[in-house]
Amino acid sequence: MKTDLFPNSVGLVEKQFFTFGDGDDALPLEAGQSIGPVTLAYETYGRLNEKRDNAILLTHALTGDSHAAGYYDVTDRKPGWWESMVGPGKGIDTTKYFVICSNVLGGCMGSTGPSSVNPETGKAYGLDFEVVTIADMVNAQKRLLDHLGIEKLVSVIGGSVGGMQVLQWCQAYPEMMHSAVALATTLRHSALSISFNEVARQAIMNDPNWNNGSYYEGPSPDTGLSLARMVGHITYLSDEAMHAKFGRRLQDPDTHASEFEAPFKVESYLHYQGARFVERFDANTLLYITKAADYFDLEAQLSAPAPGPRAKCLIVSFSSDWLYPTYQSKAIVKALKKRGSDVSFCELESTAGHDAFLLPNERLSRMIRGFLKGVHHDD
Amino acid sequence: MKTDLFPNSVGLVEKQFFTFGDGDDALPLEAGQSIGPVTLAYETYGRLNEKRDNAILLTHALTGDSHAAGYYDVTDRKPGWWESMVGPGKGIDTTKYFVICSNVLGGCMGSTGPSSVNPETGKAYGLDFEVVTIADMVNAQKRLLDHLGIEKLVSVIGGSVGGMQVLQWCQAYPEMMHSAVALATTLRHSALSISFNEVARQAIMNDPNWNNGSYYEGPSPDTGLSLARMVGHITYLSDEAMHAKFGRRLQDPDTHASEFEAPFKVESYLHYQGARFVERFDANTLLYITKAADYFDLEAQLSAPAPGPRAKCLIVSFSSDWLYPTYQSKAIVKALKKRGSDVSFCELESTAGHDAFLLPNERLSRMIRGFLKGVHHDD
Repeated sequence: MKTDLFPNSVGLVEKQFFTFGDGDDALPLEAGQSIGPVTLAYETYGRLNEKRDNAILLTHALTGDSHAAGYYDVTDRKPGWWESMVGPGKGIDTTKYFVICSNVLGGCMGSTGPSSVNPETGKAYGLDFEVVTIADMVNAQKRLLDHLGIEKLVSVIGGSVGGMQVLQWCQAYPEMMHSAVALATTLRHSALSISFNEVARQAIMNDPNWNNGSYYEGPSPDTGLSLARMVGHITYLSDEAMHAKFGRRLQDPDTHASEFEAPFKVESYLHYQGARFVERFDANTLLYITKAADYFDLEAQLSAPAPGPRAKCLIVSFSSDWLYPTYQSKAIVKALKKRGSDVSFCELESTAGHDAFLLPNERLSRMIRGFLKGVHHDD
Repeated sequence: MKTDLFPNSVGLVEKQFFTFGDGDDALPLEAGQSIGPVTLAYETYGRLNEKRDNAILLTHALTGDSHAAGYYDVTDRKPGWWESMVGPGKGIDTTKYFVICSNVLGGCMGSTGPSSVNPETGKAYGLDFEVVTIADMVNAQKRLLDHLGIEKLVSVIGGSVGGMQVLQWCQAYPEMMHSAVALATTLRHSALSISFNEVARQAIMNDPNWNNGSYYEGPSPDTGLSLARMVGHITYLSDEAMHAKFGRRLQDPDTHASEFEAPFKVESYLHYQGARFVERFDANTLLYITKAADYFDLEAQLSAPAPGPRAKCLIVSFSSDWLYPTYQSKAIVKALKKRGSDVSFCELESTAGHDAFLLPNERLSRMIRGFLKGVHHDD
């Protein structure tokens, strides 16, 4: 699908949909109930080889989606969220690997989530959507792989909440993966991370338009969702990055202490980020996925010795990430070693904060390319 | 006023009021206008000696007030905000010093602020209240000292936004002070600090009850103010302190991933802090004082060599304070040294985050006691 319009890219890509879980085949959820039918939006890049053994699964972060690389049409100016990493000759080389990325269960970018129609009522689920966990998301991804006829992955790769899914894969389906790469993530949220998520959730739930989650036929809680995004965005940056990017510069250098409007550039930037976000994201999905991230806790499970197959793991942290600081990556390494896994760990120097894992980074690309090359598979 | 009911305390204290600035005597504000009459609520502890040269001014932080020490009545269970530091034999020894603390201009604990009655309309100012700066707050404090007949202070002491006032005192009235103690503060807010303040402000302004600042005759924006407090509270703690205090403990150990209600202890704690805060604080005051803190910037002014009198300075940071990290205190030291001031600096080890400056800390008490002993004054 590559076109010359997009050199050095997977080029034009298309969002696909897989629906499963009708009737008895419904997906059992950790909370106890089952859900079905479930649709997962997904994209693939590269070609699945004949042996079907060159597949890599990407897992996306809190506000990500299935669109990891490429462009939807020739006028599209913005590529997928990991364009710098995924493509021909890149860190995750689409001339070698068949790369799959799906929007998580509970999402709002094509997969079944709280904004989807509840077949029982004919209306959007809203808060009737069952609480989903990271394990539920991973179980849904497993169904997609079964559908694609992929029995074993070269790797599962993701950062942040995507990294939690990677770790959950190691726990749930170690026999289905040769390796795992978890970036800028954690075995479980600290009280600090939970706190920021709770502030974001309250920002949404305080918005009168939120209406206890039933807003799909009326105005959306845009004000609250925008504020939630501002909170999130602060935690994705570092003090240093914010200083370099904005410092104390004023949006209008002539402004001075006389108005409540946002006059510092950093304030305008956050407002802009909030406003853009509400155009593409569903408030209830943010509630559900932040809750799933808060409840996620593999500390005990992942540390337990496992006699069976174990994925080879690469754990990467970023020096200025204060949302999931390096000490939390080291805890992952410790747990995986207790389990008996083969683990590599690297803290990359970066001033970009948590966002670093998404930014173009030649060292990270080289590291992942090299790691994948060393992974044993039947290719 | 000490009573045996409160050993080791200044005991029963009374909030006093000083009103000035009628007619021509109005207080000129940095933004250009003047304001009058202005009332400052204040308290004093200890006795002013005959020479009137044993006075210390305390300046309070964002949500503080004039009640730094002691109790309002015999059934009062909660003392002033710096009870651990201010009292007989304590770091700031009220048997030696006459200690003054006033609620800032723009405040809501007895001093003139947006919730006060605008004499021109007979209604609360709301957003008609002029924008005030840290310099305006300090100029109002200067009027109070004039009123009390105090020409020179032993010291001006405060932390956080109170520390900004201390630095502003050094800039504006160096001839009126022998020394200054600024704790856990900064010459100017980083983009990160501005961002957190802006999120807090938006939380308030998003609340429909805020009503563009005119809510004094109707319901208050409690939901927004509570969320603003939650945001603030996160920045006052450290990752480490939150982990030690709450970890991932659930409010109800039987809860599991099935509800949106706040189930982690840290969430309940933040909600509790938010709920308590709205009982005592005015939302508009939070807007005004956070703006004053954001606009505060003494970097250039304080670094300029000053030929006149210069206060002896003690600058203290706390190792886990990520709101005003140690590097920002070092910038204060650098500026004051350029100015030619006699500066001492100490970073205290603490896991308590920004809050550390308010907590009982024998090392800090000893340090301040020793510093004050070494300050030249005519006592």
